[in-house]
Amino acid sequence: MAPIATSPTSSSAPLPPAAAKDKKAAARKRFEGVYAVVRDDLLEDFRKHNMPEEAIEYYQRSMDYNVPGGKLNRGMSVVDSVAILKGRELTESEYFQAAVLGWAVEWMQAYFLVSDDIMDASITRRGQPCWYRTEGVGFMAINDALILEGAIFQMIRKHFRKEPFYVDLIDLLHEVSYQTEMGQLVDLITAPEHSVDLSKFSLSRHSTIVIYKTAYYSFYLPVALSLLLCGFPAEKQNETDPDFYKIALDILVPLGEYFQIQDDYLDYSGTPEQIGKIGTDIVDNKCSWCINTALARANPAQRAILDANYGRKDPEAEARVKTVFVELGVDAVYAEYEAASYERINALIDAVPEVPCPNGDAVLRRAVFRTFLEKIYKRTK
Amino acid sequence: MAPIATSPTSSSAPLPPAAAKDKKAAARKRFEGVYAVVRDDLLEDFRKHNMPEEAIEYYQRSMDYNVPGGKLNRGMSVVDSVAILKGRELTESEYFQAAVLGWAVEWMQAYFLVSDDIMDASITRRGQPCWYRTEGVGFMAINDALILEGAIFQMIRKHFRKEPFYVDLIDLLHEVSYQTEMGQLVDLITAPEHSVDLSKFSLSRHSTIVIYKTAYYSFYLPVALSLLLCGFPAEKQNETDPDFYKIALDILVPLGEYFQIQDDYLDYSGTPEQIGKIGTDIVDNKCSWCINTALARANPAQRAILDANYGRKDPEAEARVKTVFVELGVDAVYAEYEAASYERINALIDAVPEVPCPNGDAVLRRAVFRTFLEKIYKRTK
Repeated sequence: MAPIATSPTSSSAPLPPAAAKDKKAAARKRFEGVYAVVRDDLLEDFRKHNMPEEAIEYYQRSMDYNVPGGKLNRGMSVVDSVAILKGRELTESEYFQAAVLGWAVEWMQAYFLVSDDIMDASITRRGQPCWYRTEGVGFMAINDALILEGAIFQMIRKHFRKEPFYVDLIDLLHEVSYQTEMGQLVDLITAPEHSVDLSKFSLSRHSTIVIYKTAYYSFYLPVALSLLLCGFPAEKQNETDPDFYKIALDILVPLGEYFQIQDDYLDYSGTPEQIGKIGTDIVDNKCSWCINTALARANPAQRAILDANYGRKDPEAEARVKTVFVELGVDAVYAEYEAASYERINALIDAVPEVPCPNGDAVLRRAVFRTFLEKIYKRTK
Repeated sequence: MAPIATSPTSSSAPLPPAAAKDKKAAARKRFEGVYAVVRDDLLEDFRKHNMPEEAIEYYQRSMDYNVPGGKLNRGMSVVDSVAILKGRELTESEYFQAAVLGWAVEWMQAYFLVSDDIMDASITRRGQPCWYRTEGVGFMAINDALILEGAIFQMIRKHFRKEPFYVDLIDLLHEVSYQTEMGQLVDLITAPEHSVDLSKFSLSRHSTIVIYKTAYYSFYLPVALSLLLCGFPAEKQNETDPDFYKIALDILVPLGEYFQIQDDYLDYSGTPEQIGKIGTDIVDNKCSWCINTALARANPAQRAILDANYGRKDPEAEARVKTVFVELGVDAVYAEYEAASYERINALIDAVPEVPCPNGDAVLRRAVFRTFLEKIYKRTK
């Protein structure tokens, strides 16, 4: 899964499609320029430690393969959010700092993907072999994941050590990765690939997994980093102050949950032309929103079919599961869920107090959240 | 490998063997008491996040299996070092803080071992199956390693967030784990288990691996944590101040290197009765000090034997390698190395200026370093 890019600026006049596409490509290119700087710093640091040339080359290959090849939505959303919060174009150095934080999120994403792919025995990622399956890597990928993680704190220290919010930055990154690992743990014990036991599944278990494994780092983290960079205090100065981070969390966690449920639903309902891949959640025994919704509604006969056919590497078993999903009206339940979520999250956003940051340099604008929601609502890929 | 325990107090009168053993057992027991507190805090935190009971049980099993079962030398050396630096018995709360830092090192050790064992395809650890080989774990162990790592920053935040040295503590832990992962990377590309290429080996490569993979976290880290806890400033206040951390590093890195070389040598020369295991470095293609010493001295005929026989799972090949080691006088070279190292490190320790910590509550005592050295020198197991 990957969240949708927020719009690159806070300007509200829509651009014609070609111009919008160019603008998006330019924004990506600028963001990628910061990747090169951060990566080269990390390599330079290896050189200063007198690491052998072979290790430096390997490290570069690991970063280039795993960090920048995705949609970069999480990372670029930091840059976009900071611009919205400040309500203006960023200066060169503001852009750079925001982009480094954006890349910290992408590095985090990379270390999760590298390690998750081993744990899930995945074959491909982003249209190429998973890193651990490439020549000369194998289980070294585990250490590569640890290094990708460690690199986050190297880049943060280099660029933010002197900032008053440095400690809050570090604490936030630790908290969110720990939460993501908690989510991964619950996912793994709930839905091991080779041991199907639907009695472990439930919508509430699904919600725990999705919030911890995805919502915190994909939605809350980019905005929380933006708030820190703009100077929003991590702790209330006065009893009557708003808790900016709690406001963001209370919107972005349901938003992330909605996003992942949509992702689960598209895996089941989307055509390969639409979603760019063949959905495999049913055969892979994934604890998806669809199966949990079906389980909550199945009669004993339907439940028996689900138990007998879910998580089997067999197209006929998969088809039988899908038939039950259709019988149980999973599509209609989803449509209803999506409409209700959109309404609920919009109401949460409407209630955000658009108060300025105490330093006077930014405002907690609803547009930060709205941009995420609008990109996600009714997406079909 | 595991470093030897430093003596539990700074008192210099030797105890009779039985009393010394009792004292050591009591010190271990007290230290283990803090493990239970830290572990229960971590589990309680999982509960507060509404993690399912199954996840909490799994997490406890992972910690209990992987964290406290080793010799605890690294962790207990923090407590011992703080007592030496302060030159007195620690108060209850000082002991607790030192012990939490000690456990942070043990948690770090645990996450390295859990992940290294997968990468090395190891079978047993501490006399029982490696964690990833236990029932119901497998590659989930990768995420368990990430959680063990994340837990370090949870316990540090809980107990040190308000301390003036909190940021230095976090930076130190990040720096040392990153260095250890660098060492692991170099080790893995130099000596992959199934691809023997002795042309990649050299004494200088061995030195890089050993310093990065072992010396920093096993020797420098416990002392650096102790210095921070005692209030030794991480950065010089005045140009003329001693750099306490550099002084420690310059002794503990060579000391750690000496320790690992000794470990390598014992793997080759020690009897199973002596070292409690059968050495496997030769058959496992380990980049050990012994093979590197032999390579540096071998004539072309001997080199050919080493190339043809090193890293093969075959007792006869192993015997042929050992014969070359004997011919090349590896034992004598080691004896000479050990004597020279002892002398050199002692000279470094003699040169330590025993200056007080600016807060007046501790002194950088040579005994901190001497204790480590004396425990290691001429050990035979």
